[in-house]
Amino acid sequence: MKKGLIRLNSAIISAASVVGKKEHEGPLGAYFDMHDEEDRFGQKTWELAEAEMQRLAANLALSKGGFKENDIDAIFAGDLINQCTSSAYGLLEFDIPFLGLYGACSTAVEGLIFSSIMTSNGIYERCLSVTSSHNCSAERQFRTPLEYGAQRSPTAQWTVTGSGAFITEAADSENAKGKAKIIEAMPGISVEKGIRDAGNMGAAMAPAALYTLLRYFDESGNSPRDFDLIATGDLGYEGNSILRDLLLSEGIKCGKELNDCGMMIFSRETQDTHSGGSGCGCSAAVLASYLLPKLENGELSDILLLGTGALMSPDSIKQGLGIPGIAHLIRIKGAEK
Amino acid sequence: MKKGLIRLNSAIISAASVVGKKEHEGPLGAYFDMHDEEDRFGQKTWELAEAEMQRLAANLALSKGGFKENDIDAIFAGDLINQCTSSAYGLLEFDIPFLGLYGACSTAVEGLIFSSIMTSNGIYERCLSVTSSHNCSAERQFRTPLEYGAQRSPTAQWTVTGSGAFITEAADSENAKGKAKIIEAMPGISVEKGIRDAGNMGAAMAPAALYTLLRYFDESGNSPRDFDLIATGDLGYEGNSILRDLLLSEGIKCGKELNDCGMMIFSRETQDTHSGGSGCGCSAAVLASYLLPKLENGELSDILLLGTGALMSPDSIKQGLGIPGIAHLIRIKGAEK
Repeated sequence: MKKGLIRLNSAIISAASVVGKKEHEGPLGAYFDMHDEEDRFGQKTWELAEAEMQRLAANLALSKGGFKENDIDAIFAGDLINQCTSSAYGLLEFDIPFLGLYGACSTAVEGLIFSSIMTSNGIYERCLSVTSSHNCSAERQFRTPLEYGAQRSPTAQWTVTGSGAFITEAADSENAKGKAKIIEAMPGISVEKGIRDAGNMGAAMAPAALYTLLRYFDESGNSPRDFDLIATGDLGYEGNSILRDLLLSEGIKCGKELNDCGMMIFSRETQDTHSGGSGCGCSAAVLASYLLPKLENGELSDILLLGTGALMSPDSIKQGLGIPGIAHLIRIKGAEK
Repeated sequence: MKKGLIRLNSAIISAASVVGKKEHEGPLGAYFDMHDEEDRFGQKTWELAEAEMQRLAANLALSKGGFKENDIDAIFAGDLINQCTSSAYGLLEFDIPFLGLYGACSTAVEGLIFSSIMTSNGIYERCLSVTSSHNCSAERQFRTPLEYGAQRSPTAQWTVTGSGAFITEAADSENAKGKAKIIEAMPGISVEKGIRDAGNMGAAMAPAALYTLLRYFDESGNSPRDFDLIATGDLGYEGNSILRDLLLSEGIKCGKELNDCGMMIFSRETQDTHSGGSGCGCSAAVLASYLLPKLENGELSDILLLGTGALMSPDSIKQGLGIPGIAHLIRIKGAEK
């Protein structure tokens, strides 16, 4: 089994989230920094609306931290839209070095890994990572335009309209006091286990999440009981159930600590999203708004966040290929008291 | 002007290139490691042919360096195809941590920057970076399928069918002896200057190349005359001419040392590519096959390579948006005698 654990020592010193109407109506609604009742954010296309969410999230993270554009050394960003244009256009106004990433829904964690590597190792002082997804831009690109009213399968996940932005610095900096720390990362390895159903991403990604967790537990010597929370982002209900079974088959029993950002963001009872939320913006918004404050106030003290991505395209599905999954992991420690 | 120079100390200890028929018939034909006369690489779709080129290039870089899969700590990869599936599928068989990148044609240099950061700072011992492009998969995605026989404008570039793979280690390692070293990097900042013509990428990217060069010369104190070669990848003839004019307007006169991988790879006289080559695979294949050996044998001693990318999508063009350009720079020193 390939090793790959990276020791890090950075802190998330500021974060912000921007979401759509449905996300604001969900159980985490009160935690997000900003939402738009029409999901349009003043833009004339869904693609520009998504780009605008990235711009807003980045600006909010800057202003909440008391930073200006010139305080940031590099941006790491990505999204689900072809050629990552939500990031390219949304962040164009920032006069900051820009490094584009693609890891499907795992991109939020991938961005935090790079951001944290740069600041932990003194390569840059302060980095920003941003990701987004938008239900309307993603659905028309990956499946069908919403206007068609296509029926979704029970295993389908609901692409979250949201964006999250994070600013990191070295953990020993002045700004890092009272902030959550990224102390480890385990980049994922792609696995493809024969799932060809674009309406069941959870099944395609769960084996990748398993593989990263097994590699992590093996190399770190930690076990699930060492953590308050192991949050995937985003396997949904279907993928979470599969991952739970896969872990059990390896002799690892997880209880309530194994959760999923796509399960947290929508109410299963009152919001019909079938298997839960998904998208680059889901884990980013949940971490920025809901998990980080708990890590800062002591409600959570040590968590694993696994960004899970399905690395297919609509064309690879049409051409009959299986869906590769990937899962990047970071370990986040709560603020020291 | 935003600073951002990164000091590095890594070596490219192995590299390989795989190209198509037209590239093999060009002036650099004899330098490439492998080509396929039908551009299909034994695959039934152009997308899989491109993925197969990445697999072959990565395998060749491993075997040329005497490495096995297990010797590599991480892969950094990207391509131009929606959701970067050439990388996702081409590199799926490798049981190695995979980090996906998107920077359009700048991705080859972006991958070398990350690879070099990891190995220069002792985060990982040995990293692989791979990129690709394929004329047939790119043209049908970005413009029209080749079978339509659409007429190309004089400023249009010809997407190169090719892939390049690079293995890096710290410059003080045993394997680094006699190898070229990556000693500096300057990540690019996106700029958009109103170019909306998808048939003139050179014009969209030239201002980004200018901005990175100005930032680099300003912070490093170096000037064009300090280098044997300043190779962009890929502005083509149109973009090269614009960059030359833009530099002149800043008081910087460049001679023959300012060249372009897209101009090197095809013959202007005997191969009709209009403005020259382009694509993630162009600069990667030219560096791997043509420039690196010259850096190892002393013909070149100090070069700048600027990966230039156009960060639009077919949809953003249809929606009337301008084309953002970006240019990531690395400085490569020849092997010590």
